[in-house]
Amino acid sequence: MMTGSHYDTVLNAGKYDGRLGIVLPMVVAWQLRQRGVVLPFDLEILGFSDEEGVRFKTTFIGSSAVAGQFDTRILDHTDADGISMRAALQRAGFDPAEIPSIARDPQGLLGYVEIHIEQGPVLLDAGQALGVVTGIAGSVRYLVNITGLAGHAGTVPMGLRRDAAAAAAEVILAVERRCAANPGVVGTVGQLNVPGGAINVIPGQCELSIDLRAADDVTRDAALADVLAEIERIGARRGVSIQLDKVMQAAAAPCSPRMQARWSRSIARATGNQQPRQLPSGAGHDAMKMAAIADIGMLFVRCGNGGISHHPDESLELPDAALAAAAFEDFLLSFQDEP
Amino acid sequence: MMTGSHYDTVLNAGKYDGRLGIVLPMVVAWQLRQRGVVLPFDLEILGFSDEEGVRFKTTFIGSSAVAGQFDTRILDHTDADGISMRAALQRAGFDPAEIPSIARDPQGLLGYVEIHIEQGPVLLDAGQALGVVTGIAGSVRYLVNITGLAGHAGTVPMGLRRDAAAAAAEVILAVERRCAANPGVVGTVGQLNVPGGAINVIPGQCELSIDLRAADDVTRDAALADVLAEIERIGARRGVSIQLDKVMQAAAAPCSPRMQARWSRSIARATGNQQPRQLPSGAGHDAMKMAAIADIGMLFVRCGNGGISHHPDESLELPDAALAAAAFEDFLLSFQDEP
Repeated sequence: MMTGSHYDTVLNAGKYDGRLGIVLPMVVAWQLRQRGVVLPFDLEILGFSDEEGVRFKTTFIGSSAVAGQFDTRILDHTDADGISMRAALQRAGFDPAEIPSIARDPQGLLGYVEIHIEQGPVLLDAGQALGVVTGIAGSVRYLVNITGLAGHAGTVPMGLRRDAAAAAAEVILAVERRCAANPGVVGTVGQLNVPGGAINVIPGQCELSIDLRAADDVTRDAALADVLAEIERIGARRGVSIQLDKVMQAAAAPCSPRMQARWSRSIARATGNQQPRQLPSGAGHDAMKMAAIADIGMLFVRCGNGGISHHPDESLELPDAALAAAAFEDFLLSFQDEP
Repeated sequence: MMTGSHYDTVLNAGKYDGRLGIVLPMVVAWQLRQRGVVLPFDLEILGFSDEEGVRFKTTFIGSSAVAGQFDTRILDHTDADGISMRAALQRAGFDPAEIPSIARDPQGLLGYVEIHIEQGPVLLDAGQALGVVTGIAGSVRYLVNITGLAGHAGTVPMGLRRDAAAAAAEVILAVERRCAANPGVVGTVGQLNVPGGAINVIPGQCELSIDLRAADDVTRDAALADVLAEIERIGARRGVSIQLDKVMQAAAAPCSPRMQARWSRSIARATGNQQPRQLPSGAGHDAMKMAAIADIGMLFVRCGNGGISHHPDESLELPDAALAAAAFEDFLLSFQDEP
C-alpha cells in the first residue's frame, strides 16, 4: 500500500495543502509501530515534489516519475530565474538520469490512497469532518500571449487601437461567463500581466493563463471548445494576434469503487456518521498520476474559512485531523479482517 | 524666448519623442550663429527631465521646476528599486535644495515654444509635414488596486468567487466603452498585473492604471465621473474592494492665439502650404507646465507608421525634420519684422 501527497509550492499559500497527506500517515504509522501492530502489507509513505506546476510550469513532477510517466524533456524547462529543472536537481545532489528507475512496477501494488484537505466549502457546508472522493476532475491549462500594437495613450483614437490588455479583458470575461453557465465547470485566469506596461502606453502585449476543470472530460472539452472559439473571435474583431500554448492536460481520474467503499466504512467507524459525504475533487492530486499503476482512493478532510486554500487563511481544525487519523488507521487495519 | 522638450524615459520606446525638440533647436541656433544672425531676444534651449512620469510616477519633473511649480514632496517618491528621487538627484551630483532657485520669473519671457513629433496619425492622413497645435489635452491618471479573495482554481464554484482579475477585466472594458462613446476622449489601461499570480490560484489582487484625456476639462471630467461610478458598481457587484489613487491631474492648456498665428505663417513660408493643419495634442507636453509662466506655442511634425509612438517603430522622415527646422528658423526670424 502506498500513501502520500505533495510538498506545497504555491507562493503565499496555506499550511495543510499536500503536507497533511505526508505528515498524518507518518504519525499513524509511528503509532501502529509503537503498539506492535503488523500490517498484512508493506506501507510506503511518499512525499512528492512540485505537484502544482509552479516552478517549472509542469505538474505532478514527483508522482509522474513514480508512475513511470516522467517526460524527460521537462528537464530542460526553466524557472523564472532561468534555472533548468536538470540543473536544480543536480544542485540538490540528484542525478536526473536515475529518474526512470523510480518507476514502480504495478504488480504487487495494493493501491494508492491520499489524504488531503478538501480545499473547498462542501464538507464545511455539510457539517461533516471527512468525505470520500469519488474522482478527480480533469483539467487543461493554457498560457496565452496576446500581441496588439503599442501606442501613445493620448494620441491614438479609441477606434484605431489594437490594445492587447483590452483583448485580454474580453478573454477573462469569456472564460468566466462560459464556466458560470455550467455548474460542473470552473475556469480561472490566475496569471495576468502587461510586460513592461506603462501608465501612458497602450499595451502592445499581454500575457495570461487559463485553467479549466470539470468532473468529466467531455464536459471540460465542450467548455474549452467554446472558450477557444470565443478567443478566436476576440482576436479577429480586435486585430490582435493571440497565441495559445497548452501547458497541461490531465484526464479526469475516477477513484476505485472498492477503495471508496472501504473509506466509507472506515469513516463511519471513526466518526459514527453512517452516511459519509461523497464528493468529486475539483483540484488535481498526485493520485491522478498514481491511477496509472494502482487503484486509487482519497479521503477529504474539512477545512474552515469557507474552504479557502492556496492562501495563508487556509485552515484545518485539530479534531478533524484526529478523526482523519482514526479513519486512516481503521482503513489500514481493515485489510486484516476484509482483505 | 525659451524652447525645448524632454529626454525620453519610456522603456522600449522610439527615438524622436521629446528629443527632436531639443536637438532641432540646437541645430537651428548653431546655423544662425554660423551666419552671424543676431536675434532681437535671448534664445534658451531646455532639455527637461522625466516629463513622462515613468520612473517616479510623477510627470513634468523638469518643466514644473522651471515653471516654479515643483512640489518638493515628490523628492520622497521612490522608483521600482526603492531609490528616492532625492537620492537619485544626489547620486547624480545635484542638490535637491537648489530646485526652487530654478524657477523662472515670468517677467521678460517672450514665450515658450516646443517642437514635437505628433505621435499620432492626423498629419500623416492629411498629407502635411507640419501642423499648428491649438492646445494640449487635459489628463487624469489613477493607480487602481483591486482586492478580492484568493482561492484554489479547482474547488471554488464560479458563483462564490471574488476574483480580482475578473473585476479588473470589467474595469478595462468600462474605460474602453465610455471613451469610445465620445470622440474627444481617450482612455488607457497601460499597466495591468496580478502580483504573484499562479496558473492555479484565483487572483486575490490585481493592479492596473487608468489614463483619461480630453481636449477640454469638462469633457474629461464627465468621462471620469462615469468611469468611477461604473468602477463602484463593479466592486459592489463582485464583492471586491477597489482602491483608487489619483496620481496625476493636468488641466488642458490652450496655446496662445498669437503664437498659433505666427507658427501658421512660418509653416506657410517654409512649406508653401498656405493652410497648415491645426490640431489639438492628445499627449501631454512640457508646454503645459510652461503655460503657467509664458505664452506657449507648439509645432507638430508628421511621423510615419500610422503615427505610432512610445514604441521602437516610431519614425520621422528627414525631409519633414528639415521642413520643421526651416519653419523654426522662420519663426525665430519673424520677430525681427513682426515684433
